[in-house]
Amino acid sequence: MPNKSPFTKIKGGVCAPNGFQAAAVSAGIKNPDDPRLDLALIYSEAPCVAAGTFTTNRVKAAPVKVSQAYMKADQVQAIVANSGNANACTGVEGISDSRKTAKIISKCLGLRQRQIAICSTGVIGLPMPMTRIEPKLPELVENLSPKNGEDVARAIMTSDTCKKEISVAFDCGEHRVRIGACAKGAGMICPSMATMLCFITTDANVHPDCLQKAVQEAVEMSFNRITIDGDMSTNDTVIVLANGQSGMPAPARNSEECRKLREALVYVMTKMAKSLVRDGERVTKFVTVEVKGAKTYLDAKKVAEAVANSALVKSSWNGNDPNWGRIIHAVGYSRASVREELIDIHINGKPACLGGLQAKTQMETLRNIVAKDEFTITINLNRGNAEYEVYTSDLSPEYIDFNRSEYAYWKQARKDGLV
Amino acid sequence: MPNKSPFTKIKGGVCAPNGFQAAAVSAGIKNPDDPRLDLALIYSEAPCVAAGTFTTNRVKAAPVKVSQAYMKADQVQAIVANSGNANACTGVEGISDSRKTAKIISKCLGLRQRQIAICSTGVIGLPMPMTRIEPKLPELVENLSPKNGEDVARAIMTSDTCKKEISVAFDCGEHRVRIGACAKGAGMICPSMATMLCFITTDANVHPDCLQKAVQEAVEMSFNRITIDGDMSTNDTVIVLANGQSGMPAPARNSEECRKLREALVYVMTKMAKSLVRDGERVTKFVTVEVKGAKTYLDAKKVAEAVANSALVKSSWNGNDPNWGRIIHAVGYSRASVREELIDIHINGKPACLGGLQAKTQMETLRNIVAKDEFTITINLNRGNAEYEVYTSDLSPEYIDFNRSEYAYWKQARKDGLV
Repeated sequence: MPNKSPFTKIKGGVCAPNGFQAAAVSAGIKNPDDPRLDLALIYSEAPCVAAGTFTTNRVKAAPVKVSQAYMKADQVQAIVANSGNANACTGVEGISDSRKTAKIISKCLGLRQRQIAICSTGVIGLPMPMTRIEPKLPELVENLSPKNGEDVARAIMTSDTCKKEISVAFDCGEHRVRIGACAKGAGMICPSMATMLCFITTDANVHPDCLQKAVQEAVEMSFNRITIDGDMSTNDTVIVLANGQSGMPAPARNSEECRKLREALVYVMTKMAKSLVRDGERVTKFVTVEVKGAKTYLDAKKVAEAVANSALVKSSWNGNDPNWGRIIHAVGYSRASVREELIDIHINGKPACLGGLQAKTQMETLRNIVAKDEFTITINLNRGNAEYEVYTSDLSPEYIDFNRSEYAYWKQARKDGLV
Repeated sequence: MPNKSPFTKIKGGVCAPNGFQAAAVSAGIKNPDDPRLDLALIYSEAPCVAAGTFTTNRVKAAPVKVSQAYMKADQVQAIVANSGNANACTGVEGISDSRKTAKIISKCLGLRQRQIAICSTGVIGLPMPMTRIEPKLPELVENLSPKNGEDVARAIMTSDTCKKEISVAFDCGEHRVRIGACAKGAGMICPSMATMLCFITTDANVHPDCLQKAVQEAVEMSFNRITIDGDMSTNDTVIVLANGQSGMPAPARNSEECRKLREALVYVMTKMAKSLVRDGERVTKFVTVEVKGAKTYLDAKKVAEAVANSALVKSSWNGNDPNWGRIIHAVGYSRASVREELIDIHINGKPACLGGLQAKTQMETLRNIVAKDEFTITINLNRGNAEYEVYTSDLSPEYIDFNRSEYAYWKQARKDGLV
């Protein structure tokens, strides 16, 4: 069968689109003895149209506050990001650290301070080790190259076990356009608590309003589908920079070109979002929870999120247990309008529960499906036509073990004289 | 210091109040080869005033539907309960099984069928093994004795590691009155998913309206404080039987005697609720989360529940990590009205975070507190006067491991020819 996707995979990550450069260095932010990359820069030579979505958490990290303000005030065309420290709950000092970082980078790049977006991920509540970060910022700018896309993807990793990046090319009218992206995730049990960062670059030409709308729509279809309750961490950020260097003319609003670009953003962000689930902390399974037949969109969403967020359901998947009883239980407490005797539950299309009762499918058959590392739970409420879909994972004993302590961070901060 | 509690602990559990008898037998409901007690009966010789609260889950087990209907229609004076099978998601057959159980017991006791409440706890979605239950019901009635309170507490256990019961005596006007109770819990990570049963007996004399109100109030102050999101399992049930056999006259509404009885119900239910947390699945710590200074009661509740329900916060407690960053993070996504720079967090009275920033308390001091098996997190939002308190636990790798599979249930059901 021919590949029908209009998107061709290309190399380069965030540097794949024309006119983007990147760099990453090791600043030893979490641990001065660790040589891993932890400070990164993405830069467009040409001015950009920028759009972003930020955490809805009431407790916002300093870089989120600073980036939101800068993006409103000016035309952002560079992003500086670090892992190892979230710069969250760090008060005025944290704000000042983020601003200082933007200032230094902007001077080196010959830009205004507000043209730099800043993102951080890592532990909450500890001051940034600026004595280690500051000297590395000029080096970041010196190292800029169109070959370093992958380094950025590596530098923003925290508990991720692999880098997440993608770049694709597609035709937009008569012009070839490119989109590149990298992302990082973390814990998946309650994804609202993972810091999620995603940086997207494109050489498409796009109107600012059109871009902002497209980004919001794409985030809703992708990252919010893994953000179980719609809440986000203190640091969650998606930023898109579009520099128009593909040579395409600015498309009219609601044109075919606009639609194409929206589709491409959904495609790229969905790929990134799913890769975050797959690499969730100590995750062994990727599960799609699909709700059909709900009375309203909101009901479908409530049911999907209740099931995808249930620790008992997720534990059973970890044990290869096709436990539909726990699933219908979560459906029942989701606060959606449901009727027990109408609920059907299928696992990869095989009925596990029909009309609220155990179906005839052999338990071994269902068990063999749930033993796989990827499957789909379909819940049909049989009450209407609304649908919703989320992507989730199992929950392993190793996840809890992994998350028992961040004490090491504090010990290093003590050594650094920061606490 | 003198013990100021007006409640004297006495022996006997649900049989401590005058005129109550009980019995428990082994019916091999989960496993015919296991001699553990799994079928129990509580019976009052005299007619009772009865009140109850039941799960708010939209998916309700058959015994919940039947008991609710019976309690509305008649004067319940006996409770039959089983562990090993929840009789949930079992359709009309499940309803018929619950009714048949009530019918057999009522005939043996010389009562009307609707005077029997029925409760079940265990796996969801499997038919009741009635061939093993039915022959044991007359035996239950034959074994009735005022000495068997403890056996009932044991028979309703599922994953509980110890029985939960209490009985107290107190003065109500000029009369000595007794209250007895037993309860069972289970998983604590997301307590909404644990089946919780609590049976309370008393020889107090009380008006039906007064009792129902008192029970609702006491449940709100106790079991709902461990029911993180206010939702309940398919089977959750609290039933109170008051038979008036203490000899006290019926108290006037809003009298001192009524108030005393309400207090006693709160006392007994809070003891039971806290014991459920302490015996949560693979729990190592009992944590009180106390929220103060909220603008509204609902805000205080949202914050307390977000923190108490956060898998990341609970994992950190398991690791003895005094991680206030994760706590403030959960405060931020609770959807309550909060201002980061006003938030104070204390652990057993020691400041961990003041004004949204790291406090000066030595990390070792906080770590030593969180290493204990019981501590209190106090979150002051400094925005108003509303307060709320919940009781929660840590989350251990062993919990997930414990909950990975209920497959054994299905294998037994297959042997029984039920699926």
